[in-house]
Amino acid sequence: MYIEQAFELVKMTTGQTGRNPAVGCIIVKEGVIIGIGAHLKEGTAHAEVQAIRMAGDARDATLYCTLEPCNHRGKTPPCTEAIIAAGIKKVVFAERDTSLDNTGIRHMEAHGITVEHRPNEIISRYYEAFFISKETNRPFVTLKLATTLDGKLADDAGNSKWLTGEASRRDVHALRHRHDAVLVGRSTYEVDHPKLDARHVSDKIPAKVIVTQSGDVEIHNQDIDSAQRLIVIGPKPVEQAETIVTDDFRPARILELLFQAGISRLMIEGGSRVLSEFIEQDCFDEIVIYYAPKLLGGTLNNRFYHTLESRMIDLELTDVARFDDDIRLTYRKGQTDVHRTH
Amino acid sequence: MYIEQAFELVKMTTGQTGRNPAVGCIIVKEGVIIGIGAHLKEGTAHAEVQAIRMAGDARDATLYCTLEPCNHRGKTPPCTEAIIAAGIKKVVFAERDTSLDNTGIRHMEAHGITVEHRPNEIISRYYEAFFISKETNRPFVTLKLATTLDGKLADDAGNSKWLTGEASRRDVHALRHRHDAVLVGRSTYEVDHPKLDARHVSDKIPAKVIVTQSGDVEIHNQDIDSAQRLIVIGPKPVEQAETIVTDDFRPARILELLFQAGISRLMIEGGSRVLSEFIEQDCFDEIVIYYAPKLLGGTLNNRFYHTLESRMIDLELTDVARFDDDIRLTYRKGQTDVHRTH
Repeated sequence: MYIEQAFELVKMTTGQTGRNPAVGCIIVKEGVIIGIGAHLKEGTAHAEVQAIRMAGDARDATLYCTLEPCNHRGKTPPCTEAIIAAGIKKVVFAERDTSLDNTGIRHMEAHGITVEHRPNEIISRYYEAFFISKETNRPFVTLKLATTLDGKLADDAGNSKWLTGEASRRDVHALRHRHDAVLVGRSTYEVDHPKLDARHVSDKIPAKVIVTQSGDVEIHNQDIDSAQRLIVIGPKPVEQAETIVTDDFRPARILELLFQAGISRLMIEGGSRVLSEFIEQDCFDEIVIYYAPKLLGGTLNNRFYHTLESRMIDLELTDVARFDDDIRLTYRKGQTDVHRTH
Repeated sequence: MYIEQAFELVKMTTGQTGRNPAVGCIIVKEGVIIGIGAHLKEGTAHAEVQAIRMAGDARDATLYCTLEPCNHRGKTPPCTEAIIAAGIKKVVFAERDTSLDNTGIRHMEAHGITVEHRPNEIISRYYEAFFISKETNRPFVTLKLATTLDGKLADDAGNSKWLTGEASRRDVHALRHRHDAVLVGRSTYEVDHPKLDARHVSDKIPAKVIVTQSGDVEIHNQDIDSAQRLIVIGPKPVEQAETIVTDDFRPARILELLFQAGISRLMIEGGSRVLSEFIEQDCFDEIVIYYAPKLLGGTLNNRFYHTLESRMIDLELTDVARFDDDIRLTYRKGQTDVHRTH
């Protein structure tokens, strides 16, 4: 139960911790919660430290944590030291952190602390994003698309406004909130003038990333004075934006560059050319499809996935949600074995 | 409650009553069910008559029926006469039958019977199929498609086997069972050799309809000795099959011809050319999509809906079901006002 409560804290803070994982922590003593902590921002105190601080006196208490406490000195001191110093009696955690050297458990046990690894499938699933990103040095990538049932993002002439309903569009804001940046191709940016923010659900503004192979892009006035971080990926500097200059536009390279720029959770919203390239090059982790109750027909224009030749890509359905007459389907790629250690 | 129980009988017998609607009937006396009836087959006794027969003595009882009792002599005598003769005290029905002349209610009331119309949304929805078919002289049309998320029925080379999983395929059999006939284009027939039966759920075999504009079609050996009714729609007689000869292959004309051949519930399974024509010509009532957790990409080949130009068609989502990692979405066209009399 406490692990699940700790996971609630994770859900609350997802999207605000940069390249660090969101972590939740609950400290319990004699059946009463005496400390609650969450990692709030990259570079600040970890969840365990926050919870110990709140508890004040945490001697002989049990600490519940969604992720294995770290044992290394990064931007902050190791959590294992704080746990030992606080006199915690028992540590229960849900997910092993395979990106660490795993000396932390032995270190705590050497100080008389009982350490229990209590795996939880939902939490395990959740941290996949973090491990994928950490081990591959690229962001976790979510492809988001709002499409007709026959796979059109827009009609043959490019009209796409209000394909899905209001409830879906609000949900997209919640999805953006859980990402650090939202990427679109140049023509989607110029045609749709998308805000790509999360204003319906939060004040957090994910960075806006525009890819332009030609280097040309008309920056909207709304973006020039915006508080939103604006990144252009192109072959030459763009005056009104932070530009990542490159001549290599392969999806894998774009992801590498964005990870170096501090983006660990990336959402890609279109258009069909960008989506098709990222899918075909296997550069995604999750696909979120909003199907509008509509059919459009027409040509190959604006079909969300088209390539020179067909090739089967297998996915795994992880979630189904309905928003009025729209349906949201969430897929992951077939399981990797990256951290399937339990 | 009794109306809902009567509707259970309707669900059981859907797909076996030809051009007649499936109807369920329950007769209750002093809180006890004394008669149960359903219309089982075109040309045989109606539900009310079956229930009265089972009851034996139905004097002063209440009769619950999903559809308004008929007052006309068709292949069987009018139900109103049987109800009056049985001494029934009260009749409760859910759906008005607007294809009748509506003299039945007055006739029963004139004989001292209390008649109550108790509308029920689910039942009303259900009978739409019947009214649409009756008033337009064409079958109720369900388009069924098993597709990748990007709208491909098969890869560019035409391979489509096992796109969806076993649970979905079983569900397709249940869907076929509720139809009189299953239609495919010639090339789908020749390439896939589909059985198009409902063997996983019932022994009922819907008719198989093949459309061939050239008139050429290679009838499979399996179909020659089969108990399944085989109908070919083409420009010239085909030796081993019942042929409907026509030079007019517009979807509306095909439906007219099939209705004349006794088909009142038609399921269309492909390929993409047939589906695209029926969608574009607005010749369907329901679309059932099974999305496999896959992406194929490629060209316009085997995209389930493609036309010369895109044009928006709005649908209404009526049902969502999951079969392992496949998802089934059911859509109706925007509401017609055909029998929205209440």
